[in-house]
Amino acid sequence: MAPNLDSFFQTVDSNADAFIERLRQAVAIPSISADEARRQDVVKMGMFLKAQLETLGAKMEARPLGKQPGKEHLELPPAVIGRYPAKKQEGKRTILVYGHYDVQPAEKSDGWNTEPFELSVDDKGRMYGRGSTDDKGPVLGWVNVIESHQKAGVDFPVNLLMCFEGMEEYGSEGLDDFIVAECKPGKFFEDADAVCISDNYWLGTEKPCLTYGLRGCSYYSIEISGPGQDLHSGVFGGTAQEPMTDLTRVMGSLVDTNGKIQIPGLYELVAPLTKEEQSLYSNIAFTMDNLYESLGSKTGIFDKKEETLMGRWRYPSLSLHGIEGAFSQPGAKTVIPAKVTGKFSIRTVPDMEPHEVDSLVFSYVKDQFAKLSSKNKLNVFLQHSGKWWVASPNHWNFTAAAKAVEKVWKIKPDLTREGGSIPVTLTFEQATGKNVLLLPMGSSTDAAHSINEKLDRKNYIEGIKLLGAYLHYVAEEPTS
Amino acid sequence: MAPNLDSFFQTVDSNADAFIERLRQAVAIPSISADEARRQDVVKMGMFLKAQLETLGAKMEARPLGKQPGKEHLELPPAVIGRYPAKKQEGKRTILVYGHYDVQPAEKSDGWNTEPFELSVDDKGRMYGRGSTDDKGPVLGWVNVIESHQKAGVDFPVNLLMCFEGMEEYGSEGLDDFIVAECKPGKFFEDADAVCISDNYWLGTEKPCLTYGLRGCSYYSIEISGPGQDLHSGVFGGTAQEPMTDLTRVMGSLVDTNGKIQIPGLYELVAPLTKEEQSLYSNIAFTMDNLYESLGSKTGIFDKKEETLMGRWRYPSLSLHGIEGAFSQPGAKTVIPAKVTGKFSIRTVPDMEPHEVDSLVFSYVKDQFAKLSSKNKLNVFLQHSGKWWVASPNHWNFTAAAKAVEKVWKIKPDLTREGGSIPVTLTFEQATGKNVLLLPMGSSTDAAHSINEKLDRKNYIEGIKLLGAYLHYVAEEPTS
Ligand SMILES: [Zn+2]
Ligand SMILES: [Zn+2]
Ligand SMILES: [Zn+2]
Ligand SMILES: [Zn+2]
Repeated sequence: MAPNLDSFFQTVDSNADAFIERLRQAVAIPSISADEARRQDVVKMGMFLKAQLETLGAKMEARPLGKQPGKEHLELPPAVIGRYPAKKQEGKRTILVYGHYDVQPAEKSDGWNTEPFELSVDDKGRMYGRGSTDDKGPVLGWVNVIESHQKAGVDFPVNLLMCFEGMEEYGSEGLDDFIVAECKPGKFFEDADAVCISDNYWLGTEKPCLTYGLRGCSYYSIEISGPGQDLHSGVFGGTAQEPMTDLTRVMGSLVDTNGKIQIPGLYELVAPLTKEEQSLYSNIAFTMDNLYESLGSKTGIFDKKEETLMGRWRYPSLSLHGIEGAFSQPGAKTVIPAKVTGKFSIRTVPDMEPHEVDSLVFSYVKDQFAKLSSKNKLNVFLQHSGKWWVASPNHWNFTAAAKAVEKVWKIKPDLTREGGSIPVTLTFEQATGKNVLLLPMGSSTDAAHSINEKLDRKNYIEGIKLLGAYLHYVAEEPTS
Repeated sequence: MAPNLDSFFQTVDSNADAFIERLRQAVAIPSISADEARRQDVVKMGMFLKAQLETLGAKMEARPLGKQPGKEHLELPPAVIGRYPAKKQEGKRTILVYGHYDVQPAEKSDGWNTEPFELSVDDKGRMYGRGSTDDKGPVLGWVNVIESHQKAGVDFPVNLLMCFEGMEEYGSEGLDDFIVAECKPGKFFEDADAVCISDNYWLGTEKPCLTYGLRGCSYYSIEISGPGQDLHSGVFGGTAQEPMTDLTRVMGSLVDTNGKIQIPGLYELVAPLTKEEQSLYSNIAFTMDNLYESLGSKTGIFDKKEETLMGRWRYPSLSLHGIEGAFSQPGAKTVIPAKVTGKFSIRTVPDMEPHEVDSLVFSYVKDQFAKLSSKNKLNVFLQHSGKWWVASPNHWNFTAAAKAVEKVWKIKPDLTREGGSIPVTLTFEQATGKNVLLLPMGSSTDAAHSINEKLDRKNYIEGIKLLGAYLHYVAEEPTS
């Protein structure tokens, strides 16, 4: 039997302005985790969130995560964790939700049309502001769900565990160990029955989705060095072997214009495409025009939507990000850089084991460099890697969420994967041993991490209903 | 008959401390032309120089060069020009000398062992300080020559015209037109019989040289763009054609590890090597160890000195400088840059006409890009070009200088060319129609443009003698 959510929904609608005001207050705190000078604002944002939830009766804790690695003068912002209701209600499922209260850097001069740290709502209900969609809107969504239940006088259907961090946009420093520790017996998150993360986006703008897979990411550096210091190309050009020449040639051998990775053996690690999986892609609400719109161009690799979705979700890709140590400013400088470091990453998919990928990469890069017969020195290494993740979309956590989507948005959600990585997803899965669901609030046009980030008013308000409805369906979904 | 220079030389020696003090005062003025905030220091340095010369009786003018192109709120520092003696002495040759009173940027934190704007003389007589060798030492050399003649009571052998600029390290903004205008009939530099520029370095540390050739430089950009904005590699990797992939492949096709330019037809523009020219290189005071020392490594292209010198002086070279628009910071960023601009330059030699080089470059780059069948957009263009220069070392301007070197340093100078460009050289040659000589004061280890720039006390003091002796030999050298 579907839970009766009408009174909760009505309360959300009638409190919409207050919820937008709450988002406005949060956006006004420039909680940029990448910026040392803003560290106190990150902490302030964590305390704001904690206070809001405490006011609603949640049991909250701000847990220190220690010093920031490599910047030992800086304290990491705390993990803000909590439980609602404050006392565990036996007989109800316990859902652990995750979000982050830090944001990407933003300056008006980057090209924003409005002040990035002032929420600006336009006449189409687009609410512009840094963090609006990533991830303050969704995080406040949980706060608003609790408040709406109280105002509507509706019993809270589950035990809610919360884990909100303040370093997500800077590599979630310190969080992994914390999660692992707190999922152990006797610890804060020990009794989670499932996990829900609201920190991604719909595939398009019209149809909600539930996300059950993410690609991994292995990030590499190729360092080539020769001279003892940067050289003047007039004096040394034509007499010295130049590291940039070698690096460009090695980087140019990694991938072709159509994204085909040139590293032998790499595609053999990829799980074969089954007929069943292949049939899933044509039903997804996605068109090539969606791609072209988000690209801002027609420079896609494939002409068909199915191939494009598979290229994004279920096949690896290799991107060249740039070169450190070379001339990168506007204008002209006639330098021969002494040491240059090329950066690239590979998005990985089932069943690619990261260490197998590493060894294929290292030996290919070394082979390509050896072919140059250069006297320069090569060093290729992994900067970091995060593994891909795929969950079962047949689990009750997903079927409950699907019902909630249908209730709120009157449409069945697409079951999607994503091309990007949200490393904490895998951490939660491994630490809890439970199913993890990605339940997005915002849409594909929200421009997280870009200028003019926004969250549509409709996505925020219906999103609050969605998060609440999800908890109700989760409460009554049979074990799957 | 060799001029009797003994009394001039003795006066230089007995005033050495005062000349070093003069250099100390000049180094203390941080006349960094690239730094807007230091513009007043550049002007101050120009005024310092003007005042010193006026005190010695020279007729000096500070000529405004207008606003700085692209930074119209900034006045360019003046061209400080002069004549000594103040009134032209008929029957004497007129020599136009050039130098610059601005310097490269420098901060102690760049890695200097001493304060860059405090002249620090160590126990080996190495005088460290920004501008010591480039080009305040040589410029003050002319001042010291005048003062020493006065103190020694030796008649000044020539009419000296001076042209000192304050924007050399920032592209000599505004100077070309000024020189061309002032070399016209009735103008300040109209009666120059020859030109002498002291703004380069010996090939090594032991043997002086006279420089009669420079390579040109044509600087290109390859711009490749596709998406409307930078993309996230998780979301778009494997679905979008990436500009960096294309650019890396095109840049990788320009030159190989051994410096061999891959552009068809380019080497055919190069003047063939004659037997006579080939025989010159083995006598030059230069060893492979000199190269390895200045490289700070053994990553040279050639094993032989002759090939190395030819690679530097008389053959073209192509260097890849870097990429604008890509990720160039330390760390890891998973961006797909939307628009990337690769920078490279070609050092040109006789008889390469710059516009012919341009068209070979443009068509090769377009061909290489076309081979990729990419949907991205290519734009390849010239940023700037300066032509190569070769003068006749048999001219009296050079034979006089050679005699001066032998008198001061007791050794015949090497006749050298350089791999780099000093664009003002060609401007003076074309504007005056007269022979131009490059007469260096400092040595190869002076580290102009680097940290710990220095001028050896011996090179400074003997260099003053050299500049003075040159004027004496120039006065009596028969027309060649
Ligand atoms: Zn996020
Ligand atoms: Zn984010
Ligand atoms: Zn200079
Ligand atoms: Zn310089």
